[in-house]
Amino acid sequence: MEDALSLLDPDERSRGGLQRQTELTGAAPPEPATLLESTWRDFVFAEVWARPGLDRRARFYIAMAGAACANAPDAVVDGYVRGAMTLGDATQEELREAALHIAVYNGWTVGGVLDRSITRVSQELGLPMAAYTKVRSAPWDPEERLVQGAANFKAITTTDGPPRIPGYFQNGILNFVFGEMWTRPGLDQKARRWITLVGVGHSSTDIPIKSHVYSAMASGDASFDEMKEFVLQYAVHAGWPRGSVMQAAVFDMAAKLEKGLPFSP
Amino acid sequence: MEDALSLLDPDERSRGGLQRQTELTGAAPPEPATLLESTWRDFVFAEVWARPGLDRRARFYIAMAGAACANAPDAVVDGYVRGAMTLGDATQEELREAALHIAVYNGWTVGGVLDRSITRVSQELGLPMAAYTKVRSAPWDPEERLVQGAANFKAITTTDGPPRIPGYFQNGILNFVFGEMWTRPGLDQKARRWITLVGVGHSSTDIPIKSHVYSAMASGDASFDEMKEFVLQYAVHAGWPRGSVMQAAVFDMAAKLEKGLPFSP
Amino acid sequence: MEDALSLLDPDERSRGGLQRQTELTGAAPPEPATLLESTWRDFVFAEVWARPGLDRRARFYIAMAGAACANAPDAVVDGYVRGAMTLGDATQEELREAALHIAVYNGWTVGGVLDRSITRVSQELGLPMAAYTKVRSAPWDPEERLVQGAANFKAITTTDGPPRIPGYFQNGILNFVFGEMWTRPGLDQKARRWITLVGVGHSSTDIPIKSHVYSAMASGDASFDEMKEFVLQYAVHAGWPRGSVMQAAVFDMAAKLEKGLPFSP
Repeated sequence: MEDALSLLDPDERSRGGLQRQTELTGAAPPEPATLLESTWRDFVFAEVWARPGLDRRARFYIAMAGAACANAPDAVVDGYVRGAMTLGDATQEELREAALHIAVYNGWTVGGVLDRSITRVSQELGLPMAAYTKVRSAPWDPEERLVQGAANFKAITTTDGPPRIPGYFQNGILNFVFGEMWTRPGLDQKARRWITLVGVGHSSTDIPIKSHVYSAMASGDASFDEMKEFVLQYAVHAGWPRGSVMQAAVFDMAAKLEKGLPFSP
Repeated sequence: MEDALSLLDPDERSRGGLQRQTELTGAAPPEPATLLESTWRDFVFAEVWARPGLDRRARFYIAMAGAACANAPDAVVDGYVRGAMTLGDATQEELREAALHIAVYNGWTVGGVLDRSITRVSQELGLPMAAYTKVRSAPWDPEERLVQGAANFKAITTTDGPPRIPGYFQNGILNFVFGEMWTRPGLDQKARRWITLVGVGHSSTDIPIKSHVYSAMASGDASFDEMKEFVLQYAVHAGWPRGSVMQAAVFDMAAKLEKGLPFSP
Repeated sequence: MEDALSLLDPDERSRGGLQRQTELTGAAPPEPATLLESTWRDFVFAEVWARPGLDRRARFYIAMAGAACANAPDAVVDGYVRGAMTLGDATQEELREAALHIAVYNGWTVGGVLDRSITRVSQELGLPMAAYTKVRSAPWDPEERLVQGAANFKAITTTDGPPRIPGYFQNGILNFVFGEMWTRPGLDQKARRWITLVGVGHSSTDIPIKSHVYSAMASGDASFDEMKEFVLQYAVHAGWPRGSVMQAAVFDMAAKLEKGLPFSP
């Protein structure tokens, strides 16, 4: 039963939270000195991270993307990155793709927060810098790229892409984000979904939130039940008001999908 | 007359702003070297903080929550915290509750910004770390907790709480935020309102903004006139566009309340 | 043809991106060590900054305001400030006005990020601190100020200003933002438009975004074609979801203007 933990002795709960925090961040945290620090252990790690219904790898991507969007202190971002790497949930190569993905979905600065954390933790773990294939690594035909971008947009979002209007639509969306980034081989589509959802959510952008919630479920990458757990994990770094907006989008879009309706905001 | 100050000699105004800034931050600021720095003194402290209609304690909570949401430099957050503590408007214990409250309403990173400031200023003032009662400090019955959470939600927001759906609604809202946090004894409900309003506002979340503006006035914790002054104080750290959104919500919700209507966005 | 670059050899493209990055930031960047860092060069500088349709000066204001809103690392903000100053696109005096402008449109902390960067770069370039005229630098009549604020509001936004309600509307909007800030002589209205658009956009505030997009085009300060390029440049720091919201606003408002309609959201 999901709330079994809530019947524990409070000190048992704190010990359980500390144990999970230590495991998930790959290091023993300092002793909490304040209400906020102890609640990090007693609520966030003892309750939120302990919940069933969403796997640990998904939670790591949600947590690190959320912490980066919030410009969290290095120690917080590093904790998630260290945990994901030491527990085998993510490789340095995958995390580098994640940094580019969140850069697109919440701005370049946010990508940099995650990217620098990956560098710090990799060095700490004695890992060499991962080799990578740069974007635009081979010559391409612009027309083919735009055709491919539109096809990828449709496959990934289940809706039609934007018209070829120079600027944001053609050069930003079709050519780069869907023409190249989403289909880079270093990170799977499911991980990219969680990162995308955190990025659109943290931006508080009405239609992008709804469309990506719809796509996540319509594609089969995320179930309705996973989405409800996602919202709670996401709210930790985004705050409860953004959680409310995301939760409403999840219910609205799930209702549309249940009726077989196409996306509409 | 409220605009009396605007007739003063400009240098008198700067001296008045400096005096108020010094008093409210508990320290003499460095001499302004730029237009922005002097406008901090000549507009924010000489005009905004000087206005009638909202008490100083409310302004401190609005300012420190807003500065934390904006990830302001340590010196800015510390100024408000030092001022509130040295002027007797807030104790360390109350501020620790405020840090947890803004963590919930705008994300854990934001809570951390305020929490670390409280630690720095307390040390600077030679105060020992305040004792605190941790969350989940006694065993509880999950069913009672959810019943209590729903009752608290209704009492605090004047509207019905969400259904018991596992994840964000049941475990985030009912069990934790309204089942426990809002009713912790260390901080009064009125202070919690201002912090909540800053958090929902900074998140740019449409319905949460409107519902918390409605609740703040419906509960009697904030009058319509106080809310209009709140918006100006809030805009300092949130920016004028978020101020416009908040101001519109205040007018819309006040109109509903005047007609005796229940909350609707 | 706008996509000519995309046919280049990938290494030529990286060399071109590096050259442009070096020129625009006034310094040779460190060798990229990660996917994200190389994409900064290979997409942002090689493609986005290379596009026609929006002049370099506009791009500098968009980039530095966007970087400040995102609380970007000092090195990123400094790069744009150094580039704008060394290429002659902005003076220290103009940039100080820009810092105050973005403080109003996205909060004081954001203004401080840009202001401190201007100080660092000016010192690096051996420039003395610029003299400035402080706000409220002469006595004024409150009534005249409010009349002037309403007239400026109308001239700048093409719509009527808010009623004289004490607090945010009267003391924030009419008295300060439109009664004084927008018409300070140190920065032209066109530059102020770009900064405003970045600030309202980063706030994710629905009606302020639409109204300022409308005003930018209605005033003649920005053409429809410039706005489409603006969105792509803006998305670099704001992220693609905010870019989508801005792009939608641009199309909606352009359609209204084409039909000669007044502003409506």
